[in-house]
Amino acid sequence: MMRIDIISLFPDMFAGPLGHSIIKRAREAGLLSVQVTNPRDFAFDKHHIVDDYPFGGGAGMVMKPDPVFLAVESITAEREPDKCRVILMCPGGQPFTQQKARELAGYEQLVFICGHYEGLDDRVRQHLADEAVSIGDYVLTGGELPAMVVVDAVARMLPGVLGASDGAEQDSFYSGLLEYPQYTRPRDFRGWSVPDVLISGDHAKIARWRRKQSLKNTLERRPDLLVDFPLNAEDAVLLEEIKKERSGG
Amino acid sequence: MMRIDIISLFPDMFAGPLGHSIIKRAREAGLLSVQVTNPRDFAFDKHHIVDDYPFGGGAGMVMKPDPVFLAVESITAEREPDKCRVILMCPGGQPFTQQKARELAGYEQLVFICGHYEGLDDRVRQHLADEAVSIGDYVLTGGELPAMVVVDAVARMLPGVLGASDGAEQDSFYSGLLEYPQYTRPRDFRGWSVPDVLISGDHAKIARWRRKQSLKNTLERRPDLLVDFPLNAEDAVLLEEIKKERSGG
Repeated sequence: MMRIDIISLFPDMFAGPLGHSIIKRAREAGLLSVQVTNPRDFAFDKHHIVDDYPFGGGAGMVMKPDPVFLAVESITAEREPDKCRVILMCPGGQPFTQQKARELAGYEQLVFICGHYEGLDDRVRQHLADEAVSIGDYVLTGGELPAMVVVDAVARMLPGVLGASDGAEQDSFYSGLLEYPQYTRPRDFRGWSVPDVLISGDHAKIARWRRKQSLKNTLERRPDLLVDFPLNAEDAVLLEEIKKERSGG
Repeated sequence: MMRIDIISLFPDMFAGPLGHSIIKRAREAGLLSVQVTNPRDFAFDKHHIVDDYPFGGGAGMVMKPDPVFLAVESITAEREPDKCRVILMCPGGQPFTQQKARELAGYEQLVFICGHYEGLDDRVRQHLADEAVSIGDYVLTGGELPAMVVVDAVARMLPGVLGASDGAEQDSFYSGLLEYPQYTRPRDFRGWSVPDVLISGDHAKIARWRRKQSLKNTLERRPDLLVDFPLNAEDAVLLEEIKKERSGG
């Protein structure tokens, strides 16, 4: 079982997201346990103060190092260091990717530190976290939503969490291409019909159409993903077809 | 006031995240209202079915188009189209950025459609959504966490939501650079001291040090961000200093 610990000043934010979907399923199946620890419980002054003014001046408050160190150490004390990874969620971290999700799924324990307020004392990043991770180039209020995103992505990679019926293998970024379009009933909806090929029953033709749509979607919306994508022989043929169609040929 | 509607099969996921932090503050200040609508309430068959098998075969279930269309239309019927934006959260969408957050903050109403299961009938993307947005290149269970991320980033951009004390202007990606390190008390923590410059009281020197650290962090961790960054004259000098220090010069 993987153990995930989240260090957050706002434990109540997590009940909804952790109680649903893949994370819930993984927990119920005994494949994952998730706990949230509040650094405020490790601030031992009278008022349980967790933030203070920044040295050097400036707006906003900065999270103090001591409660965060103590909260993490209360969790990791008895763990083998190489089986446990402490991850700081912060906008200056390395971009989170599917490859990183796969890598993190290999640990026995993950500890996510969620920053808040204007910032977090940098000694946490320097001396406590093993690495810093960012989910994207945008500004969020805290590390809570990013931690949930990473937990969801990692939970999906744990052996046994996704059944065959989930079709994980066909998801975007498992393959490195965007997904092909999906359709379900009704076959005709407000005059917009499902592509005929999907009703044909010809499985080879359907597979080819889907692969072509994946390549087409990727080419049109995220051409950057194709740069390093290892095209096989059929992909190359399909891509030529797409380019011809686009140029009206 | 901006109105945000979220279309989701899992409304309970949102209570925690929407009840905290910047989103809570924006709602309490009357600057933002957020509602969650469940497409299941617009599935009018006996069992309120919202998903079905994919045409063409394959694993997983696909969300049906009708309940999603009806749910969105119940919200947008009386709205002026150019003041309201319908956004599909999906891994094949355009990457979400701070620039996109700023753009979305200009609408009066945003509607976020959260896909789930294996996929969502593609007619939603083609004929209902104004655009599709992705928060990053990783696979998640559904659009719920991505919608929360976008709502948080957009809420921060609404006029009046952030006070001066929040220091939004200094955040990563407002400026286009990563943040400089922040420190607060204690000045010495376990032998790790706060940099002397921050205690100097020399504001010009502190500002210069912080800018240099921002540039240094960006150069070391996210050099891609510097490619299009408009360096001013001082930045260029600082960057030269950093490069010299790195090469041991």
